[in-house]
Amino acid sequence: MAAQGKPVLHGYFRSSCSWRVRIAFALKGIEYDQVPVSLVKDGGQQLTDQYKTVNPMQQVPAVTIDGITLSQSLAIIQYIDETRPGPRLLPADPQQRAQVRMISDLIASGIQPLQNLHVIQKIGAEKVQWAQHFINKGFNALESILKQTSGTYCVGNEISMADICLVPQVYNAERFKVDLDQYPTIKRINQTLMELEAFKVSHPTCQPDTPDDLRA
Amino acid sequence: MAAQGKPVLHGYFRSSCSWRVRIAFALKGIEYDQVPVSLVKDGGQQLTDQYKTVNPMQQVPAVTIDGITLSQSLAIIQYIDETRPGPRLLPADPQQRAQVRMISDLIASGIQPLQNLHVIQKIGAEKVQWAQHFINKGFNALESILKQTSGTYCVGNEISMADICLVPQVYNAERFKVDLDQYPTIKRINQTLMELEAFKVSHPTCQPDTPDDLRA
Repeated sequence: MAAQGKPVLHGYFRSSCSWRVRIAFALKGIEYDQVPVSLVKDGGQQLTDQYKTVNPMQQVPAVTIDGITLSQSLAIIQYIDETRPGPRLLPADPQQRAQVRMISDLIASGIQPLQNLHVIQKIGAEKVQWAQHFINKGFNALESILKQTSGTYCVGNEISMADICLVPQVYNAERFKVDLDQYPTIKRINQTLMELEAFKVSHPTCQPDTPDDLRA
Repeated sequence: MAAQGKPVLHGYFRSSCSWRVRIAFALKGIEYDQVPVSLVKDGGQQLTDQYKTVNPMQQVPAVTIDGITLSQSLAIIQYIDETRPGPRLLPADPQQRAQVRMISDLIASGIQPLQNLHVIQKIGAEKVQWAQHFINKGFNALESILKQTSGTYCVGNEISMADICLVPQVYNAERFKVDLDQYPTIKRINQTLMELEAFKVSHPTCQPDTPDDLRA
Protein backbone atom coordinates (compact mmCIF):
# COMPACT_ATOMS: atom_id res chain seq x y z
CA MET A 1 0.00 0.00 0.00
CA ALA A 2 1.40 3.41 -0.94
CA ALA A 3 1.98 5.90 1.86
CA GLN A 4 -1.18 7.97 2.03
CA GLY A 5 -0.38 10.46 4.75
CA LYS A 6 -2.29 10.79 7.99
CA PRO A 7 -5.92 9.66 8.20
CA VAL A 8 -8.44 12.51 8.18
CA LEU A 9 -11.39 12.44 10.58
CA HIS A 10 -14.44 14.42 9.55
CA GLY A 11 -16.17 14.82 12.90
CA TYR A 12 -17.80 17.03 15.46
CA PHE A 13 -16.51 17.58 18.98
CA ARG A 14 -19.78 16.63 20.64
CA SER A 15 -20.82 13.72 18.39
CA SER A 16 -20.57 10.52 20.42
CA CYS A 17 -19.84 8.50 17.27
CA SER A 18 -16.96 10.85 16.38
CA TRP A 19 -15.64 10.45 19.91
CA ARG A 20 -15.60 6.66 19.47
CA VAL A 21 -13.23 7.03 16.51
CA ARG A 22 -11.05 9.54 18.37
CA ILE A 23 -10.68 7.03 21.23
CA ALA A 24 -9.70 4.28 18.80
CA PHE A 25 -7.04 6.46 17.19
CA ALA A 26 -5.72 7.43 20.63
CA LEU A 27 -5.61 3.84 21.91
CA LYS A 28 -3.71 2.78 18.79
CA GLY A 29 -1.38 5.78 18.98
CA ILE A 30 -2.30 6.93 15.47
CA GLU A 31 -1.87 10.56 14.49
CA TYR A 32 -4.68 12.01 12.39
CA ASP A 33 -6.01 15.30 11.10
CA GLN A 34 -9.44 16.59 12.02
CA VAL A 35 -11.84 18.40 9.69
CA PRO A 36 -14.64 19.84 11.84
CA VAL A 37 -18.19 19.41 10.52
CA SER A 38 -20.51 21.41 12.73
CA LEU A 39 -23.90 19.77 13.20
CA VAL A 40 -25.39 23.11 14.30
CA LYS A 41 -23.63 25.94 12.40
CA ASP A 42 -25.11 27.02 9.03
CA GLY A 43 -28.14 24.79 9.64
CA GLY A 44 -25.84 21.76 9.82
CA GLN A 45 -22.64 21.55 7.78
CA GLN A 46 -23.19 17.79 7.33
CA LEU A 47 -26.06 18.65 4.98
CA THR A 48 -23.94 20.45 2.35
CA ASP A 49 -23.47 18.96 -1.12
CA GLN A 50 -19.75 18.96 -0.48
CA TYR A 51 -20.03 16.83 2.66
CA LYS A 52 -22.51 14.52 0.95
CA THR A 53 -19.65 13.41 -1.32
CA VAL A 54 -17.66 12.50 1.82
CA ASN A 55 -20.54 10.66 3.54
CA PRO A 56 -23.77 10.25 1.58
CA MET A 57 -25.53 9.53 4.90
CA GLN A 58 -24.75 13.14 5.91
CA GLN A 59 -23.60 12.14 9.35
CA VAL A 60 -20.32 12.23 11.24
CA PRO A 61 -17.87 10.61 11.55
CA ALA A 62 -16.25 9.78 8.24
CA VAL A 63 -12.60 8.91 7.89
CA THR A 64 -10.39 9.17 4.82
CA ILE A 65 -7.70 6.53 5.20
CA ASP A 66 -5.49 4.47 2.85
CA GLY A 67 -7.15 6.01 -0.19
CA ILE A 68 -10.76 5.26 0.77
CA THR A 69 -13.41 7.08 2.76
CA LEU A 70 -15.34 5.13 5.38
CA SER A 71 -18.36 6.07 7.44
CA GLN A 72 -20.06 4.23 10.33
CA SER A 73 -17.88 4.36 13.43
CA LEU A 74 -17.73 0.63 14.17
CA ALA A 75 -16.68 -0.15 10.61
CA ILE A 76 -13.97 2.50 10.91
CA ILE A 77 -12.76 1.21 14.28
CA GLN A 78 -12.57 -2.38 13.09
CA TYR A 79 -10.71 -1.29 9.95
CA ILE A 80 -8.20 0.56 12.09
CA ASP A 81 -7.88 -2.47 14.33
CA GLU A 82 -7.34 -4.88 11.44
CA THR A 83 -4.77 -2.76 9.61
CA ARG A 84 -2.78 -1.01 12.33
CA PRO A 85 -0.41 -2.23 15.06
CA GLY A 86 -0.93 -1.39 18.72
CA PRO A 87 -3.24 -2.86 21.35
CA ARG A 88 -6.05 -4.90 19.82
CA LEU A 89 -9.50 -3.39 20.08
CA LEU A 90 -11.29 -6.73 19.72
CA PRO A 91 -10.21 -9.80 21.71
CA ALA A 92 -8.61 -12.82 19.98
CA ASP A 93 -11.17 -15.25 21.44
CA PRO A 94 -14.23 -15.56 19.14
CA GLN A 95 -16.73 -15.70 22.00
CA GLN A 96 -15.27 -12.60 23.62
CA ARG A 97 -15.17 -10.88 20.22
CA ALA A 98 -18.86 -11.68 19.84
CA GLN A 99 -19.59 -10.23 23.27
CA VAL A 100 -17.65 -7.07 22.39
CA ARG A 101 -19.65 -6.70 19.18
CA MET A 102 -22.93 -7.46 20.99
CA ILE A 103 -22.31 -4.68 23.52
CA SER A 104 -21.04 -2.28 20.84
CA ASP A 105 -24.11 -2.90 18.68
CA LEU A 106 -26.47 -2.64 21.64
CA ILE A 107 -25.18 0.91 22.02
CA ALA A 108 -24.58 1.75 18.35
CA SER A 109 -27.86 0.31 17.03
CA GLY A 110 -30.02 0.05 20.14
CA ILE A 111 -29.44 3.37 21.87
CA GLN A 112 -27.47 6.03 20.00
CA PRO A 113 -29.57 6.22 16.79
CA LEU A 114 -32.70 6.87 18.84
CA GLN A 115 -31.29 9.87 20.66
CA ASN A 116 -29.14 11.49 18.00
CA LEU A 117 -29.63 15.10 16.99
CA HIS A 118 -31.65 14.50 13.82
CA VAL A 119 -34.15 12.21 15.59
CA ILE A 120 -34.46 14.43 18.65
CA GLN A 121 -35.16 17.42 16.44
CA LYS A 122 -38.00 15.52 14.77
CA ILE A 123 -39.47 14.56 18.15
CA GLY A 124 -39.68 18.18 19.26
CA ALA A 125 -41.08 19.11 22.69
CA GLU A 126 -40.96 15.57 24.11
CA LYS A 127 -37.31 15.14 23.22
CA VAL A 128 -35.85 14.78 26.70
CA GLN A 129 -38.35 12.11 27.78
CA TRP A 130 -37.88 10.33 24.44
CA ALA A 131 -34.10 10.24 24.81
CA GLN A 132 -34.31 9.20 28.46
CA HIS A 133 -36.70 6.37 27.56
CA PHE A 134 -34.33 4.83 25.01
CA ILE A 135 -31.19 5.39 27.03
CA ASN A 136 -32.78 3.83 30.13
CA LYS A 137 -34.14 0.90 28.11
CA GLY A 138 -30.68 0.26 26.69
CA PHE A 139 -28.79 0.82 29.92
CA ASN A 140 -31.08 -1.57 31.82
CA ALA A 141 -30.14 -4.28 29.32
CA LEU A 142 -26.50 -3.25 29.22
CA GLU A 143 -26.17 -3.29 33.02
CA SER A 144 -27.51 -6.84 33.05
CA ILE A 145 -25.16 -7.99 30.28
CA LEU A 146 -22.10 -6.28 31.79
CA LYS A 147 -22.69 -8.09 35.10
CA GLN A 148 -21.89 -11.26 33.17
CA THR A 149 -19.19 -10.11 30.76
CA SER A 150 -17.21 -7.47 32.62
CA GLY A 151 -13.99 -7.54 34.54
CA THR A 152 -12.18 -4.26 34.87
CA TYR A 153 -13.68 -3.29 31.51
CA CYS A 154 -16.82 -4.21 29.54
CA VAL A 155 -15.55 -7.63 28.48
CA GLY A 156 -12.94 -9.07 30.81
CA ASN A 157 -9.82 -7.12 31.67
CA GLU A 158 -8.79 -5.75 28.30
CA ILE A 159 -10.05 -2.51 26.78
CA SER A 160 -12.12 -3.15 23.67
CA MET A 161 -14.49 -1.57 21.16
CA ALA A 162 -17.25 -2.08 23.74
CA ASP A 163 -15.51 0.37 26.08
CA ILE A 164 -15.01 2.75 23.17
CA CYS A 165 -18.79 2.77 22.72
CA LEU A 166 -19.63 2.91 26.42
CA VAL A 167 -17.94 6.14 27.43
CA PRO A 168 -19.47 8.43 24.76
CA GLN A 169 -22.92 6.91 25.43
CA VAL A 170 -22.56 7.64 29.15
CA TYR A 171 -21.63 11.20 28.22
CA ASN A 172 -24.86 11.45 26.19
CA ALA A 173 -26.83 9.97 29.09
CA GLU A 174 -25.46 12.66 31.37
CA ARG A 175 -26.43 15.36 28.87
CA PHE A 176 -30.00 14.00 28.97
CA LYS A 177 -29.88 13.84 32.80
CA VAL A 178 -30.27 10.07 33.07
CA ASP A 179 -29.69 8.90 36.66
CA LEU A 180 -26.56 6.75 36.40
CA ASP A 181 -26.82 5.52 39.99
CA GLN A 182 -29.30 2.97 38.62
CA TYR A 183 -26.46 1.37 36.68
CA PRO A 184 -23.57 0.68 39.07
CA THR A 185 -21.59 -1.50 36.65
CA ILE A 186 -21.85 1.00 33.80
CA LYS A 187 -20.88 3.78 36.19
CA ARG A 188 -17.89 1.90 37.59
CA ILE A 189 -16.47 0.93 34.18
CA ASN A 190 -17.00 4.44 32.82
CA GLN A 191 -15.16 5.96 35.77
CA THR A 192 -12.26 3.54 35.34
CA LEU A 193 -12.02 4.31 31.62
CA MET A 194 -12.17 8.06 32.13
CA GLU A 195 -8.92 7.83 34.10
CA LEU A 196 -7.12 6.74 30.94
CA GLU A 197 -5.24 9.14 28.68
CA ALA A 198 -6.87 7.90 25.42
CA PHE A 199 -10.32 8.71 26.76
CA LYS A 200 -9.21 12.09 28.14
CA VAL A 201 -7.45 13.46 25.05
CA SER A 202 -10.40 12.49 22.84
CA HIS A 203 -13.03 14.08 25.11
CA PRO A 204 -15.50 16.56 23.56
CA THR A 205 -14.25 19.32 25.85
CA CYS A 206 -10.79 19.49 24.26
CA GLN A 207 -11.13 19.14 20.49
CA PRO A 208 -10.06 21.69 17.84
CA ASP A 209 -13.70 22.64 17.25
CA THR A 210 -14.78 22.76 20.91
CA PRO A 211 -16.26 26.22 21.59
CA ASP A 212 -14.41 28.22 24.23
CA ASP A 213 -17.31 28.16 26.70
CA LEU A 214 -17.36 24.33 26.67
CA ARG A 215 -13.63 23.79 27.06
CA ALA A 216 -12.47 21.85 30.09
CA MET B 1 -15.13 -27.08 22.42
CA ALA B 2 -17.65 -29.69 23.56
CA ALA B 3 -20.45 -30.62 21.17
CA GLN B 4 -23.34 -28.39 22.12
CA GLY B 5 -26.07 -29.52 19.75
CA LYS B 6 -27.74 -27.31 17.21
CA PRO B 7 -27.84 -23.54 17.69
CA VAL B 8 -31.20 -22.19 18.82
CA LEU B 9 -32.59 -19.03 17.22
CA HIS B 10 -35.07 -17.06 19.28
CA GLY B 11 -36.77 -15.02 16.58
CA TYR B 12 -39.91 -13.82 14.90
CA PHE B 13 -40.87 -14.60 11.31
CA ARG B 14 -41.37 -10.97 10.35
CA SER B 15 -38.45 -9.41 12.25
CA SER B 16 -35.90 -8.19 9.71
CA CYS B 17 -33.06 -8.72 12.19
CA SER B 18 -34.16 -12.33 12.76
CA TRP B 19 -34.26 -12.83 9.00
CA ARG B 20 -30.64 -11.63 8.76
CA VAL B 21 -29.57 -14.46 11.07
CA ARG B 22 -31.69 -17.02 9.20
CA ILE B 23 -29.96 -16.01 5.94
CA ALA B 24 -26.53 -16.40 7.56
CA PHE B 25 -27.36 -19.89 8.83
CA ALA B 26 -28.71 -20.83 5.39
CA LEU B 27 -25.66 -19.50 3.53
CA LYS B 28 -23.38 -21.42 5.87
CA GLY B 29 -25.52 -24.56 5.64
CA ILE B 30 -25.99 -24.70 9.42
CA GLU B 31 -28.98 -26.51 10.87
CA TYR B 32 -30.64 -24.78 13.80
CA ASP B 33 -33.76 -24.87 15.90
CA GLN B 34 -36.19 -21.98 16.10
CA VAL B 35 -38.01 -20.79 19.20
CA PRO B 36 -40.68 -18.32 18.07
CA VAL B 37 -41.00 -15.13 20.12
CA SER B 38 -44.08 -13.28 18.92
CA LEU B 39 -43.69 -9.51 19.02
CA VAL B 40 -47.47 -9.08 18.89
CA LYS B 41 -49.10 -11.99 20.77
CA ASP B 42 -49.74 -11.58 24.53
CA GLY B 43 -48.72 -7.91 24.28
CA GLY B 44 -45.28 -8.98 23.03
CA GLN B 45 -43.64 -12.21 24.20
CA GLN B 46 -40.24 -10.50 24.10
CA LEU B 47 -41.31 -8.54 27.19
CA THR B 48 -41.71 -11.57 29.50
CA ASP B 49 -39.36 -12.09 32.45
CA GLN B 50 -38.42 -15.43 30.92
CA TYR B 51 -37.28 -13.90 27.62
CA LYS B 52 -35.48 -11.12 29.46
CA THR B 53 -33.06 -13.78 30.75
CA VAL B 54 -32.37 -14.76 27.11
CA ASN B 55 -31.95 -11.18 25.86
CA PRO B 56 -32.05 -8.39 28.44
CA MET B 57 -32.70 -5.94 25.57
CA GLN B 58 -36.06 -7.73 25.05
CA GLN B 59 -35.62 -7.85 21.28
CA VAL B 60 -35.20 -10.59 18.72
CA PRO B 61 -33.05 -12.23 17.55
CA ALA B 62 -31.02 -14.02 20.18
CA VAL B 63 -29.04 -17.17 19.48
CA THR B 64 -27.88 -19.81 21.91
CA ILE B 65 -24.74 -21.35 20.44
CA ASP B 66 -21.63 -23.10 21.80
CA GLY B 67 -22.81 -22.60 25.37
CA ILE B 68 -23.41 -18.85 25.20
CA THR B 69 -26.35 -16.68 24.25
CA LEU B 70 -25.75 -13.78 21.90
CA SER B 71 -28.01 -10.96 20.82
CA GLN B 72 -27.53 -8.27 18.13
CA SER B 73 -27.74 -9.79 14.67
CA LEU B 74 -24.42 -8.52 13.29
CA ALA B 75 -22.53 -9.84 16.32
CA ILE B 76 -24.26 -13.21 15.82
CA ILE B 77 -23.52 -13.30 12.07
CA GLN B 78 -19.84 -12.45 12.56
CA TYR B 79 -19.55 -15.08 15.31
CA ILE B 80 -21.03 -17.68 12.97
CA ASP B 81 -18.67 -16.54 10.23
CA GLU B 82 -15.60 -16.71 12.45
CA THR B 83 -16.36 -20.14 13.94
CA ARG B 84 -18.03 -22.11 11.15
CA PRO B 85 -16.87 -23.43 7.76
CA GLY B 86 -18.67 -22.60 4.54
CA PRO B 87 -18.64 -19.50 2.35
CA ARG B 88 -17.21 -16.47 4.13
CA LEU B 89 -19.70 -13.76 4.98
CA LEU B 90 -17.05 -11.03 5.19
CA PRO B 91 -14.37 -10.64 2.50
CA ALA B 92 -10.70 -11.37 3.23
CA ASP B 93 -9.55 -7.93 2.04
CA PRO B 94 -9.60 -5.40 4.91
CA GLN B 95 -10.93 -2.53 2.77
CA GLN B 96 -13.74 -4.67 1.40
CA ARG B 97 -14.48 -5.93 4.93
CA ALA B 98 -14.75 -2.31 6.04
CA GLN B 99 -17.14 -1.53 3.18
CA VAL B 100 -19.27 -4.55 4.11
CA ARG B 101 -19.42 -3.39 7.71
CA MET B 102 -20.12 0.22 6.65
CA ILE B 103 -23.12 -0.87 4.57
CA SER B 104 -24.31 -3.32 7.23
CA ASP B 105 -24.13 -0.64 9.91
CA LEU B 106 -25.78 1.96 7.71
CA ILE B 107 -28.78 -0.38 7.65
CA ALA B 108 -28.49 -1.85 11.16
CA SER B 109 -27.81 1.44 12.97
CA GLY B 110 -28.95 4.06 10.48
CA ILE B 111 -32.28 2.70 9.26
CA GLN B 112 -33.71 -0.35 11.01
CA PRO B 113 -33.71 0.96 14.62
CA LEU B 114 -35.75 3.99 13.53
CA GLN B 115 -38.55 1.97 11.97
CA ASN B 116 -38.76 -1.03 14.26
CA LEU B 117 -41.99 -1.96 15.97
CA HIS B 118 -41.26 -0.43 19.39
CA VAL B 119 -40.32 2.95 17.91
CA ILE B 120 -43.21 3.01 15.44
CA GLN B 121 -45.64 2.26 18.26
CA LYS B 122 -44.31 5.23 20.20
CA ILE B 123 -44.67 7.51 17.16
CA GLY B 124 -48.36 6.66 16.76
CA ALA B 125 -50.46 8.22 13.99
CA GLU B 126 -47.49 9.57 12.02
CA LYS B 127 -45.80 6.19 11.91
CA VAL B 128 -45.87 5.55 8.16
CA GLN B 129 -44.42 8.95 7.27
CA TRP B 130 -41.83 8.56 10.04
CA ALA B 131 -40.71 5.15 8.75
CA GLN B 132 -40.68 6.33 5.13
CA HIS B 133 -38.57 9.36 6.08
CA PHE B 134 -35.84 7.26 7.68
CA ILE B 135 -35.90 4.50 5.08
CA ASN B 136 -35.67 7.04 2.24
CA LYS B 137 -32.90 8.94 4.01
CA GLY B 138 -30.93 5.71 4.42
CA PHE B 139 -31.68 4.35 0.96
CA ASN B 140 -30.59 7.59 -0.70
CA ALA B 141 -27.21 7.23 0.98
CA LEU B 142 -27.06 3.50 0.37
CA GLU B 143 -27.84 3.86 -3.34
CA SER B 144 -24.97 6.32 -3.65
CA ILE B 145 -22.54 4.04 -1.77
CA LEU B 146 -23.57 0.91 -3.67
CA LYS B 147 -22.88 2.63 -6.98
CA GLN B 148 -19.24 2.66 -5.88
CA THR B 149 -18.93 -0.66 -4.04
CA SER B 150 -21.23 -3.07 -5.84
CA GLY B 151 -20.67 -5.69 -8.47
CA THR B 152 -23.25 -8.43 -8.65
CA TYR B 153 -23.77 -7.94 -4.91
CA CYS B 154 -23.39 -5.07 -2.45
CA VAL B 155 -19.60 -5.26 -2.31
CA GLY B 156 -18.07 -6.79 -5.41
CA ASN B 157 -19.15 -10.18 -6.66
CA GLU B 158 -19.29 -12.18 -3.45
CA ILE B 159 -22.29 -12.38 -1.15
CA SER B 160 -21.55 -10.79 2.22
CA MET B 161 -23.10 -9.57 5.46
CA ALA B 162 -24.08 -6.39 3.58
CA ASP B 163 -26.40 -8.43 1.33
CA ILE B 164 -27.74 -10.22 4.40
CA CYS B 165 -28.76 -6.80 5.76
CA LEU B 166 -30.04 -5.42 2.45
CA VAL B 167 -32.77 -7.92 1.62
CA PRO B 168 -34.69 -7.74 4.93
CA GLN B 169 -34.47 -3.94 4.87
CA VAL B 170 -35.94 -3.85 1.35
CA TYR B 171 -38.73 -6.10 2.65
CA ASN B 172 -39.42 -3.55 5.41
CA ALA B 173 -39.34 -0.73 2.86
CA GLU B 174 -41.98 -2.51 0.80
CA ARG B 175 -44.15 -2.97 3.90
CA PHE B 176 -43.97 0.81 4.43
CA LYS B 177 -44.71 1.42 0.72
CA VAL B 178 -41.41 3.11 -0.10
CA ASP B 179 -41.02 3.58 -3.86
CA LEU B 180 -38.06 1.38 -4.75
CA ASP B 181 -37.86 2.65 -8.32
CA GLN B 182 -35.92 5.58 -6.86
CA TYR B 183 -33.13 3.16 -5.96
CA PRO B 184 -32.20 1.13 -9.06
CA THR B 185 -29.02 -0.36 -7.61
CA ILE B 186 -30.72 -1.46 -4.39
CA LYS B 187 -33.58 -2.90 -6.43
CA ARG B 188 -31.29 -4.78 -8.80
CA ILE B 189 -29.16 -6.34 -6.07
CA ASN B 190 -32.24 -7.29 -4.05
CA GLN B 191 -33.81 -9.02 -7.04
CA THR B 192 -30.61 -10.92 -7.74
CA LEU B 193 -30.34 -12.06 -4.12
CA MET B 194 -33.98 -13.11 -3.92
CA GLU B 195 -33.27 -15.71 -6.61
CA LEU B 196 -30.96 -17.53 -4.22
CA GLU B 197 -32.09 -20.47 -2.11
CA ALA B 198 -30.64 -19.11 1.18
CA PHE B 199 -32.73 -15.97 0.87
CA LYS B 200 -35.85 -17.91 -0.12
CA VAL B 201 -35.85 -20.54 2.63
CA SER B 202 -35.29 -17.87 5.28
CA HIS B 203 -38.10 -15.57 4.03
CA PRO B 204 -40.74 -14.39 6.52
CA THR B 205 -43.48 -16.11 4.52
CA CYS B 206 -42.23 -19.64 5.25
CA GLN B 207 -41.10 -19.84 8.86
CA PRO B 208 -42.50 -22.17 11.55
CA ASP B 209 -44.31 -19.23 13.18
CA THR B 210 -45.61 -17.63 9.95
CA PRO B 211 -49.42 -17.34 10.28
CA ASP B 212 -51.37 -19.27 7.64
CA ASP B 213 -52.74 -16.15 5.97
CA LEU B 214 -49.23 -14.79 5.35
CA ARG B 215 -47.71 -17.99 3.99
CA ALA B 216 -46.32 -17.88 0.46
